[in-house]
Amino acid sequence: MALIVHKYGGTSMGSTERIRSVAQRVAKWVRAGHQLVVVPSAMSGETNRLLGLAKELLPNPQTPQALREMDAVAATGEQVSVGLLALALQAQGLQAVSYGGWQVPIATDSAYTKARIASIDDQRVRADLAAGKVVVITGFQGIDPQGHVTTLGRGGSDTSAVAVAAALKAAECLIYTDVDGVYTTDPRIVPEARRLATISFEEMLEMASLGSKVLQIRSVEFAGKYRVPVRVLSSFTPWDIPLEEEAKSGTLITFEEDEKMEQAVVAGIAFNRDEAKISVIGVPDRPGIASQIVGPVADANIDIDVIIQNVSHDGRTDFSFTVPRSDYARAMAVLQEQVMPAIGAARLAGDAKICKVSIVGIGMRSHVGVASKMFRTLSEEGINIQMITTSEIKTCVVIDEKYMELAVRALHKAFELEQAPVAAA
Amino acid sequence: MALIVHKYGGTSMGSTERIRSVAQRVAKWVRAGHQLVVVPSAMSGETNRLLGLAKELLPNPQTPQALREMDAVAATGEQVSVGLLALALQAQGLQAVSYGGWQVPIATDSAYTKARIASIDDQRVRADLAAGKVVVITGFQGIDPQGHVTTLGRGGSDTSAVAVAAALKAAECLIYTDVDGVYTTDPRIVPEARRLATISFEEMLEMASLGSKVLQIRSVEFAGKYRVPVRVLSSFTPWDIPLEEEAKSGTLITFEEDEKMEQAVVAGIAFNRDEAKISVIGVPDRPGIASQIVGPVADANIDIDVIIQNVSHDGRTDFSFTVPRSDYARAMAVLQEQVMPAIGAARLAGDAKICKVSIVGIGMRSHVGVASKMFRTLSEEGINIQMITTSEIKTCVVIDEKYMELAVRALHKAFELEQAPVAAA
Repeated sequence: MALIVHKYGGTSMGSTERIRSVAQRVAKWVRAGHQLVVVPSAMSGETNRLLGLAKELLPNPQTPQALREMDAVAATGEQVSVGLLALALQAQGLQAVSYGGWQVPIATDSAYTKARIASIDDQRVRADLAAGKVVVITGFQGIDPQGHVTTLGRGGSDTSAVAVAAALKAAECLIYTDVDGVYTTDPRIVPEARRLATISFEEMLEMASLGSKVLQIRSVEFAGKYRVPVRVLSSFTPWDIPLEEEAKSGTLITFEEDEKMEQAVVAGIAFNRDEAKISVIGVPDRPGIASQIVGPVADANIDIDVIIQNVSHDGRTDFSFTVPRSDYARAMAVLQEQVMPAIGAARLAGDAKICKVSIVGIGMRSHVGVASKMFRTLSEEGINIQMITTSEIKTCVVIDEKYMELAVRALHKAFELEQAPVAAA
Repeated sequence: MALIVHKYGGTSMGSTERIRSVAQRVAKWVRAGHQLVVVPSAMSGETNRLLGLAKELLPNPQTPQALREMDAVAATGEQVSVGLLALALQAQGLQAVSYGGWQVPIATDSAYTKARIASIDDQRVRADLAAGKVVVITGFQGIDPQGHVTTLGRGGSDTSAVAVAAALKAAECLIYTDVDGVYTTDPRIVPEARRLATISFEEMLEMASLGSKVLQIRSVEFAGKYRVPVRVLSSFTPWDIPLEEEAKSGTLITFEEDEKMEQAVVAGIAFNRDEAKISVIGVPDRPGIASQIVGPVADANIDIDVIIQNVSHDGRTDFSFTVPRSDYARAMAVLQEQVMPAIGAARLAGDAKICKVSIVGIGMRSHVGVASKMFRTLSEEGINIQMITTSEIKTCVVIDEKYMELAVRALHKAFELEQAPVAAA
């Protein structure tokens, strides 16, 4: 018998028919002798509907008092879900009780619409589990020190589930989602892409943040911090497949060092084309110049990702970075108006038609030659590399957008990711 | 400056357009210098939608754990409303904060789906009012001693509003509704029916329970117990009519004894045709017979209203009572199968085509002849009276349903209710 946390997304909760199916799946786990805590999202479309109503009344909520009310309204979506799921579980003959975040309580800070979980009181939940109940807890929300409802921001239910699993020291946190696991890359681009049976927490962080949108990034950070074993698996399998099969499906995010033994050098290839590249050319190379360039862009609330500054010659250097493509025009305007006149650079250049392609793998730490193999592969395909950044477990290049699919396919083949790893370390 | 409670029904909250109009009306009161607490219902149709979803999953919720979840789901309707209204008030430039019943808190017992308010903590609300905020509180719900969400049952938002007004010792509780006040009788039957500027609490109780469905009966009881001045007024007037005019519109439910000075002998005429009459004829007149007849009917969860037992002769009596018309067939079956064989009565008779007509007036206490005038008026119209019951401020007759409109019109005319009273006491 183990304590297991299940998390179901909005699609799984999208109708009473689907909620019934979730209840049947949970019942299967309970009848196998497990203690279950379930964290469902709002019914699909509901959070958007609620926020839409709110914005009709106050189109641009900015003040804390307005954001507080946005949260109070948005949080009701999950409050409906937990009650409905508890009823569906009772219809299956189980004992079940639902709690809002404030009832557990799940304590957060007061950063409305993007609150962070501070602590979770496990007493009430433990008592219910001990009494043989399934406990259904709202995702996405908590309560701040003043007793106001907060939400964790979009996708926060993943984080709630992992946090609840951490607080209860659950054996595993199962995230049921519309993909059946984490792949070596996007199967729509590389049909040979292979589902990973396991992935390390650090690899998952890089894969998630680089565009393999499976889990909310904060939930992965949480899982890493509290060492919660998280499994991503499909919500589309019939609820009545054998439990042993379901328990091994999907992708398990691991923390055990010895798991590395079976780890491939490269776990997968991530990519995205949501960014644009900006270069300030011929910048006088003096202290403080980087913050003079980046500062005004950040002040305009524009995220900056990859930043590169090369060694200077003749007292001048080139400074490049990427911004979200949707902020490209705004970033260029800020630079043209506020930065260029102040720093005396030669020229401002930009390109929105770029993409980022990264190879990610914890094995790269101890394997040289991974980056050079990546560069050679791209070169053989005639793809010019515009920018390069690396971390311990990732090598990332910026290339022309039109080569994205070609680059991903070539790299997937070069690193033989279609084949299951055979003790690579 | 006064502390005022406003209550708005589901129709008033039915769309963002209508919610904006509510906010404008509240803003008018705030700008006139008043402190405002607002209790809105769920958006029209929302509670039914939520309960419909719940019943798709568990069609016949009976256990406390199921009723608890029904309440958790149903309560979210008002939680959405308060957040949206707070946002709409902020859009009007006001400070506003919303609270769920659990946040105030509004303490109730644990009778899920029909909880009763035990107490209301006014500290948080008073602090907000003192800080210049409008406070928006969910109707219909509270929190029980174990921290579970409860609902007060249908129409409970009226009760919530009056209870909040009582706790805050508000100057007045304004119930905005789809009628513009309490009338001497239903204007659809008597076009000359006149809106009452004031009605006593006791008269209102009789009028409400007898079918003039303006306010939830429990809210009137609450108003009586805590002496809260309640005004029923129209939500359909434009929000920008002068405040002085709005503040005097509708009908004020009063408790002051000296108000009686201007009170007519008869305040109004109530009626309903939702009941059926059952008579057990030739009952042996022995102790305990009444409970032998009524007991099994009550055990079948059928409400019994008017009960009449006449003096016996030859050791036998007739026993009559009314039941909701929708339970008539079931009540007859219970009596035929369980009661008649046991008590040795001569005959069971029933009639579903009856109606109740009542004259209500606090002035009847000190005026003789009101009942006899009622009986004479009906007699002159050739209407046979089947049953009679009286209380201090009410005389109620059961007559053939087909005479209902005729009886109401004749009585309205006989007691000159179309004319405003001229110091009748």
